[in-house]
Amino acid sequence: MSVSKIFNDPVYGFITVSDRLILQLIDHPYFQRLSRISQVGLSHFVYPGAHHTRFHHALGALHLMQQALDGLRAKGITITEDEYRSAQIAILLHDIGHGPFSHTLENTILEGVDHESLSLEIMKLLNVQYHSELEQAIAIFTGTYHKRFLHQLVSSQLDIDRLDYLMRDSFYTGVAEGIIGSERIIKMMQVENDQLVIEEKGIYSLEKFLIARRLMYWQVYLHKTVLAAELLLTLIMQRAKSLAAEGKKLFCTSALQKFLYPSSVSTLNQSAMIEEFTRLDDFDVLASIKEWCNENDRVLSDLCKRLIQRRLFKAVWWNEEPDKQTMQRIVQTISSYYGLDDNEACYYLRSERIVQLPYDSSKGEIMIRLKNGSLKTIFEASDNLSRENLSRPVVKYIVCYPKEIQLEISKN
Amino acid sequence: MSVSKIFNDPVYGFITVSDRLILQLIDHPYFQRLSRISQVGLSHFVYPGAHHTRFHHALGALHLMQQALDGLRAKGITITEDEYRSAQIAILLHDIGHGPFSHTLENTILEGVDHESLSLEIMKLLNVQYHSELEQAIAIFTGTYHKRFLHQLVSSQLDIDRLDYLMRDSFYTGVAEGIIGSERIIKMMQVENDQLVIEEKGIYSLEKFLIARRLMYWQVYLHKTVLAAELLLTLIMQRAKSLAAEGKKLFCTSALQKFLYPSSVSTLNQSAMIEEFTRLDDFDVLASIKEWCNENDRVLSDLCKRLIQRRLFKAVWWNEEPDKQTMQRIVQTISSYYGLDDNEACYYLRSERIVQLPYDSSKGEIMIRLKNGSLKTIFEASDNLSRENLSRPVVKYIVCYPKEIQLEISKN
Amino acid sequence: MSVSKIFNDPVYGFITVSDRLILQLIDHPYFQRLSRISQVGLSHFVYPGAHHTRFHHALGALHLMQQALDGLRAKGITITEDEYRSAQIAILLHDIGHGPFSHTLENTILEGVDHESLSLEIMKLLNVQYHSELEQAIAIFTGTYHKRFLHQLVSSQLDIDRLDYLMRDSFYTGVAEGIIGSERIIKMMQVENDQLVIEEKGIYSLEKFLIARRLMYWQVYLHKTVLAAELLLTLIMQRAKSLAAEGKKLFCTSALQKFLYPSSVSTLNQSAMIEEFTRLDDFDVLASIKEWCNENDRVLSDLCKRLIQRRLFKAVWWNEEPDKQTMQRIVQTISSYYGLDDNEACYYLRSERIVQLPYDSSKGEIMIRLKNGSLKTIFEASDNLSRENLSRPVVKYIVCYPKEIQLEISKN
Amino acid sequence: MSVSKIFNDPVYGFITVSDRLILQLIDHPYFQRLSRISQVGLSHFVYPGAHHTRFHHALGALHLMQQALDGLRAKGITITEDEYRSAQIAILLHDIGHGPFSHTLENTILEGVDHESLSLEIMKLLNVQYHSELEQAIAIFTGTYHKRFLHQLVSSQLDIDRLDYLMRDSFYTGVAEGIIGSERIIKMMQVENDQLVIEEKGIYSLEKFLIARRLMYWQVYLHKTVLAAELLLTLIMQRAKSLAAEGKKLFCTSALQKFLYPSSVSTLNQSAMIEEFTRLDDFDVLASIKEWCNENDRVLSDLCKRLIQRRLFKAVWWNEEPDKQTMQRIVQTISSYYGLDDNEACYYLRSERIVQLPYDSSKGEIMIRLKNGSLKTIFEASDNLSRENLSRPVVKYIVCYPKEIQLEISKN
Repeated sequence: MSVSKIFNDPVYGFITVSDRLILQLIDHPYFQRLSRISQVGLSHFVYPGAHHTRFHHALGALHLMQQALDGLRAKGITITEDEYRSAQIAILLHDIGHGPFSHTLENTILEGVDHESLSLEIMKLLNVQYHSELEQAIAIFTGTYHKRFLHQLVSSQLDIDRLDYLMRDSFYTGVAEGIIGSERIIKMMQVENDQLVIEEKGIYSLEKFLIARRLMYWQVYLHKTVLAAELLLTLIMQRAKSLAAEGKKLFCTSALQKFLYPSSVSTLNQSAMIEEFTRLDDFDVLASIKEWCNENDRVLSDLCKRLIQRRLFKAVWWNEEPDKQTMQRIVQTISSYYGLDDNEACYYLRSERIVQLPYDSSKGEIMIRLKNGSLKTIFEASDNLSRENLSRPVVKYIVCYPKEIQLEISKN
Repeated sequence: MSVSKIFNDPVYGFITVSDRLILQLIDHPYFQRLSRISQVGLSHFVYPGAHHTRFHHALGALHLMQQALDGLRAKGITITEDEYRSAQIAILLHDIGHGPFSHTLENTILEGVDHESLSLEIMKLLNVQYHSELEQAIAIFTGTYHKRFLHQLVSSQLDIDRLDYLMRDSFYTGVAEGIIGSERIIKMMQVENDQLVIEEKGIYSLEKFLIARRLMYWQVYLHKTVLAAELLLTLIMQRAKSLAAEGKKLFCTSALQKFLYPSSVSTLNQSAMIEEFTRLDDFDVLASIKEWCNENDRVLSDLCKRLIQRRLFKAVWWNEEPDKQTMQRIVQTISSYYGLDDNEACYYLRSERIVQLPYDSSKGEIMIRLKNGSLKTIFEASDNLSRENLSRPVVKYIVCYPKEIQLEISKN
Repeated sequence: MSVSKIFNDPVYGFITVSDRLILQLIDHPYFQRLSRISQVGLSHFVYPGAHHTRFHHALGALHLMQQALDGLRAKGITITEDEYRSAQIAILLHDIGHGPFSHTLENTILEGVDHESLSLEIMKLLNVQYHSELEQAIAIFTGTYHKRFLHQLVSSQLDIDRLDYLMRDSFYTGVAEGIIGSERIIKMMQVENDQLVIEEKGIYSLEKFLIARRLMYWQVYLHKTVLAAELLLTLIMQRAKSLAAEGKKLFCTSALQKFLYPSSVSTLNQSAMIEEFTRLDDFDVLASIKEWCNENDRVLSDLCKRLIQRRLFKAVWWNEEPDKQTMQRIVQTISSYYGLDDNEACYYLRSERIVQLPYDSSKGEIMIRLKNGSLKTIFEASDNLSRENLSRPVVKYIVCYPKEIQLEISKN
Repeated sequence: MSVSKIFNDPVYGFITVSDRLILQLIDHPYFQRLSRISQVGLSHFVYPGAHHTRFHHALGALHLMQQALDGLRAKGITITEDEYRSAQIAILLHDIGHGPFSHTLENTILEGVDHESLSLEIMKLLNVQYHSELEQAIAIFTGTYHKRFLHQLVSSQLDIDRLDYLMRDSFYTGVAEGIIGSERIIKMMQVENDQLVIEEKGIYSLEKFLIARRLMYWQVYLHKTVLAAELLLTLIMQRAKSLAAEGKKLFCTSALQKFLYPSSVSTLNQSAMIEEFTRLDDFDVLASIKEWCNENDRVLSDLCKRLIQRRLFKAVWWNEEPDKQTMQRIVQTISSYYGLDDNEACYYLRSERIVQLPYDSSKGEIMIRLKNGSLKTIFEASDNLSRENLSRPVVKYIVCYPKEIQLEISKN
């Protein structure tokens, strides 16, 4: 009996899922966890509507993938039923390795492991549970499947992932300029020599896409108040981990404990560790932070209260990397202002190097198929875009510290 | 120096707030807490985009209130600067007494206290903190202020609250039919004999508003799967409270502890109790529930896992109240199915009486001012609406129990 | 070789047409003419954005028809390829018989012939041109095809026509309350005993649809200023026809001439007459009216100037039919005010009976399929709608006359 | 008594106009004419929803101007009541000199006169009619008023005109990528040294604005099928004027006659000529073209039928200017294909030089005010935009000829 499920989506209207295995994956606790993980970290500190989740993004990407595959099939590209399903699974699960608050705590909770690797590990676990039915999806996800364009749909400079998150994040933040013509770009997709290309008449939509992405980065993902909030969250986790390492017993949920006190899991093998990871979400982190407001470690408690009460650090953009001396001087100002020792004061000052690369040719070029059939990179095809400009990473430094010591700093 | 702050809102575009006191209230921890309280309980179990918060709704209502007040002033209605500010404060804070998951746990966490009373109590606390500057806002909120229409804007059958939440909830759920012409209705507001009335040409918008509200109730707020999820949450809290009452020590955040183990706060006076309440939000509840998945109480742990993994109860609408005998028989089926005692089995079956009243004349009539100047109730003025139909409460019974025992029940 | 064409549509995004015959019909001059016929008469006199055309509505309806047919097929309803195409053709051409300004001049330009009959005649002409390929489409349009639900999709109380025009007209007028969940309603369609029915959970969307339709009637189609404009247009055509009948030579385009001076075509057979009709559009009428501003017939010239300069008549709703005596008195006031004879003065006063019937059971009931499989009318299934209210035609009288004689009338 | 009028606008919701003089100008026949002039020429040949008018654009621009002026006042910029009104009038009337189909027939109907000059002449006529009340508006429009920023709001690289038309045209065409954050850009406006500048944080919105403008040019205004349609319209008018010059009597409305047979108005002084121009709109042109389908001049009649039946020329982009020899050869192919003489054949081939300049510094720079208060051009302030790229005009050649002779040409 055919079962199909319809999800309401304010962005696309309706999302219909009919595949049995895909429905099972959506119901799986690993995937349900994504409904408790904020898609855009702490962006709602600036954009109060941006509480959407990784769960919703994954569903949206699934929908766009269906549209893309249907469109390519209609243009005569062969996509078998298995490939159709596997490409959908690959996009559905591409972010399943995200931890609490998505990118914000990546590398803080689990040091040295990015979410893509975790996504892959979780897919492998699922592959075992589902009797190798995800084999092909994994091959597409990792780029080892022979039809290269399927991987490009999942992960490239113009992948379904980006087409969904730009639309969705601009919808939920209300930053109308982030709106892109995802539907139109998908209609312009074509496959040439096993490579995803865009038909020439989609070129203006692509320019818009590249600009909209930059805009969303600077206006949302790297908005300085968002960064200030996310940095505060990071500092809190670092302080807590440091206290934990010293043996201090902190309130925490059992899911978080495994990562706060890594010694407690040191004996676990990898798959058990991954299994633990799939229990962790925003609620573990934020509930613990709320509790830590009452901790007797002065730094931890103060940072937590600032986050919960939204008394964020001031964030200032610097074009140059702050030199050590200046930073040291500010730390001293801070330590004397609050009567902290230098180690403690470090939690009140942080600079971070922010790099945004509008176009990353190491991920493969965006290719245009001209009407005459020849292929060109987007820079060759566009009379507006300059590879030089877009391939040059923008590097800035965000420096964050408490608002109340603002004046003291400017004195220096 | 004038400070003004702009909030991005996908629903209205921009929300500008310039009033110093209102900005302070928004920054207050009591209000910030609302950003951790889901506006529509567990509706995101059905509508994955519906993660918006009470914080956002309150800001939206503030915005509409400004529009309404500006519009009335432009029509010659006198509204002093103080009244302008106070009406804004009243709407900003009207929901500040909501607890975790808004209506879902109302009366479960704090029995016998509704959110309006709590809103009032919190306003009173704030009034003390802000040197009586909220006096007039409180009078407007409670309906004791002499200009009655200001209270009607805050709370009546056609108040700013409803105009915002219908718009906002339909936006975030994607239920397009919930969209109402809030802006148009506000343009049609007028004051006559100190009473809020709507100009005749707004009558079709009002009909749409009444229908949209019914629709949102049945399609979102009272969607049976949403009810099933919310009932599960309620059962969990009831089970936890019952175990707590028996002295069982359960993991919980300190904010939740006060309400799970009421004895621990029995010595607190009311304002201290309220103060405790302002620490509680969705994160306390859900983090604890995640933890309880591992509790050794079989019922609590099972219910929690069902919620976290979204294995909800089956929900069935009954037109008649289920008689005790039938319910008793189902409980027995359940207890034998799972090997539970009757007391435990009760947590696997619940029926709830659901009442929806499209139009409640006890809250005051919606009045229309005809072009000839005379006033009529909306029923007299409309050739479509029937008071009889809309004033008749729709009463149904939702019966929830685990999906796996579905067949056994139908056998009976 | 497969050809497919994509139309941009602000309402639905993209409309894709792949069928060869349908593409040919869209290119046919008969159909292209619809791009010069305003969808909503003179509504742009009140809603300046409402310049959309019958062409656009027909394309939109085509799109929704595809969605409906695809949805029904996915639910297991058998629809052959021929039926699929024919149902599309039937909806594409359902309004091809509309004349200039759609309903406004229906019965004025061609007396006693409604646009449905003309649509049918034009379809028959096309059927000849396309070697009987439209046979089945005509059968579906006229309701003689054995699968009744296909006809119901084209013409019933809940047909694709209405689902498109309500969406489209509310989009272009900006009357947000007219927005309906066409997509949702279509998802809820089902066929039962060869009859189009709606699944139970679509019931609130249906209520909204019925209310939205009433709202659009009163707020747009029957907006009194729109009626005043359309009545003025009608009076102009009547005056011109009357002068033409007297033998006066008026400027007019040759397409219009055939209908202004019917004697000139009296010798034509019906199909030649229809052929003439397919040349007529808004431009013939409005260009002629612009010219008639300079006619020496005082009445014609004055009425035309009023329309072109948007100096419309005043329009007043009366609940009772104006009695002859009152009308006669007003005519006299008018004739003495302007120094006209009674015959001329009649063109400055017009009352029209306006009937709006929210639900017309003579067009067949809207049927709901309950979850238990039984069928009920929407009134039996809804706890809100009252057949009595919705089946009662609302009858009003609109009385129009020049603004400048307003005072004189109120004296009487 | 204060009168105010509300216009429904799907783009902005409501547009409220309260100024007596502005309301009178809107009611003036010169302005009403704009409701019969297509905003985007023949773009609806490609985008069937794009039937919006200059009237609607002017109202929209009026609305945005109010927002801009209110915003600047709120930031402390002094704008007197007179200036407030005059700036509104200037933007309301900035396009009043547009003729039929806006830009399409500019320079064809009235050779050597652009619409801006005509707008100015018409404003002067109105200034006389309104007793010099438009004096200041004219000064703002022409740039002679001492507060330069008011002129920049009306006409510059980032003026209210563009902010409205990009929004509106993308809305009506459904080209979502054209959507810009007009509201946000307006919020970021500031005045510095009497010059309109944008605050630093608006920089990404500005980049999006520049890209969206390019996109709308290539995707809509210069879409090759749109150009093919507009060129056909131009050829028709040129043929008709040529026949008229030879003394051939063509059907035409009296408004068009003045411009088709310029000798008929050679004795008129300029203001009488302008007065004639204000009678001319799309209806004169298209109704005449419909009539000319039956003219006995073979070329005129054929071209007209092609336009009316939408059998457009094929349009091909060439990067180089077609050399005379090639063009001559094609003309010969055409003349032999149809049996036309060379003069006639010329109406079947046209190449046009299309220039699009994304950024035109001759209209003044777009200036950014950095947070530190200093001013920079947008290129200095942006790390993405390159003056070199955006200031380089894109030049292409569109070559149009009938589809049926496609093959013959490629043979050459």
